[in-house]
Parts: sequence; structure tokens; C-alpha cells
Amino acid sequence: MSGTPRAAGGSADSADASSLPRAAGRPTAFDTDLVRRRMLIAGIAAPLAAALPGCATLDGDTPMYGLIGKMRAAPGQRDALVAILLESVHGMPGCLSYVVAADPTDADGIWITEVWNSADSHKASLSLPAVRDAITRAKPLIAGFDQHIETLPLGGHGLTRAG
Amino acid sequence: MSGTPRAAGGSADSADASSLPRAAGRPTAFDTDLVRRRMLIAGIAAPLAAALPGCATLDGDTPMYGLIGKMRAAPGQRDALVAILLESVHGMPGCLSYVVAADPTDADGIWITEVWNSADSHKASLSLPAVRDAITRAKPLIAGFDQHIETLPLGGHGLTRAG
Repeated sequence: MSGTPRAAGGSADSADASSLPRAAGRPTAFDTDLVRRRMLIAGIAAPLAAALPGCATLDGDTPMYGLIGKMRAAPGQRDALVAILLESVHGMPGCLSYVVAADPTDADGIWITEVWNSADSHKASLSLPAVRDAITRAKPLIAGFDQHIETLPLGGHGLTRAG
Repeated sequence: MSGTPRAAGGSADSADASSLPRAAGRPTAFDTDLVRRRMLIAGIAAPLAAALPGCATLDGDTPMYGLIGKMRAAPGQRDALVAILLESVHGMPGCLSYVVAADPTDADGIWITEVWNSADSHKASLSLPAVRDAITRAKPLIAGFDQHIETLPLGGHGLTRAG
């Protein structure tokens, strides 16, 4: 019963985390945390699938992988950054959902929500030429990251295979 | 450059806010905040659409409407709550995306991300018989809400009309 908002599920440092896949990230404490969270995801996926036998959205034994992130654009650069983000959202193999949204209460805030058919598909997207090119152009427009939350998507509407 | 997570974009009190539409909500300060945020959404939608002329996902002059929320299930009730949430995600008019996810670091945590073709479509979903029935059955399984963030979705992959 909390009336006070709290950031739950993860945190991000602007230098190390991104809802945009990083083109050339060095191993960091954040990467270690990602590995730990992915192990957690794998660990809870099987019992959840057993509890939801009608859930057809878990792809066999491979759990889906979700990200919810808030990015801060450099002042005045949100529109340009959003345009770049929207360029490369289609055609990423294993991407089931990728939504870019503005924060109506923060002139620089952008929310990105992602669903992938696996953590590996998300990781592989880092190497796509279109994504790498988008990251290169987007980086100078990004001031930082306020939230970076990994989730275990279980199902829903609007999960569409792109490739 | 914040390494500290912060809840941005909105807050929720467990009695007044829900990623599940409320079946019979009384007017609250939270409702007033929603109205204010919707006015903000409407206010920034036009300039954003102008800045993104290639963005086909804004439905004419009506801005899309997004929600990102974290719900806490009563202890041990997450699987049952998720099953109810997943029952009614299909066939809601104007719903473009509705994803239910577990939080791998919080045994009771559920993330729900939603995209609607308008705030009105989201509001209208409150009256759908299947949604009202789901709310009735879900309420006893919900311990509270940790985050409730409204967004202005601008585009992406996986935005699919349900009705």
C-alpha cells in the first residue's frame, strides 16, 4: 500500500545501460547484473509456464525477454532522437514488440518498452547494421537513462514476430 | 547522469490507481492528475506529429495513450492474477498492445504495458463485460500498485488493432 512511487525492478547508469542496445559495450557491473537477472528469468519461466498451461506465448522452453526503460534526450533533442529510434524498430529478428513513447510530464523523457522472443534475440540485435547505425547517430542526442527494468513477458496482445 | 533509479512520469496509490481499469472508481486526486496528464498528452501530440511526419501510428489528430504499471500480487497469488489478466487482453476495441510480464526480482511483481489508440478507448474498456468480470476476480489477488505511468506512444513495432 504505497502512495510513494519507487523505482522497482532495476536501475541504470547513463554510461552503462540503454534501452537502445549498446553497439560496443565494455563489461561492467551492469552486465553482471544483467546476467544475474537473466538467470532469474530462466529460473522462474518454467514454473510460470506450468502454472499457465494455456499461455501460448512462451516459445517452447525459451522465456521471452522484456525491457522497460526511460531515456533522457539532450535538451531539445527528443523529437530527433525519437525519429532515429523509430527508424529501426521493424525487421529485428525475434522482436515481438518495441514501442517508443514520450513522457508527457518530462520534455526530454522517452519511454521504450520491448518484448523479445528470447534474451539471445535481444543480444543479437546489437549486431544488426541498422541498429548499430542508429546507435551511432542516437548517442550524441542521449543525456542519460533513468530506468532500465528487465521483465519476463508472459503474454498479451500485440506480440508480433518481425522476423 | 543518474545512477539512482527514480520513479518518473507518475505515481500511484494502491487504492486509487491500477493498470487494470477500475470498475467503479470514485473521483480522486489521482483522477485529477490523470486529466492533467491527458491534457498534457493532447498538448504535445500535435508538435510531435509535425516533427515526425512519417509516423503513421498517430491516428489522425488523436494521440495514442500508453500506460506502464507495476502491480503487486498478494503473496503467492501472482500466477493466478496473471492468468486472469491474460484472459481479457484480446478483443478490446482500440487496444493496440497489452503485455503482462513478471518481475524476475520480485516474486509478487507484475509489469503491465499498454498502448491504446486514444485515452477514450482505454476509458471505454472499463465498461466491457469481460474486463469488469476480470476486475472483480482480480481485485482480491492484488496487494497494491508501485508505479503507474501514463505515456504518449509515438510508434513502434507490435501495435495491432484488436477491434
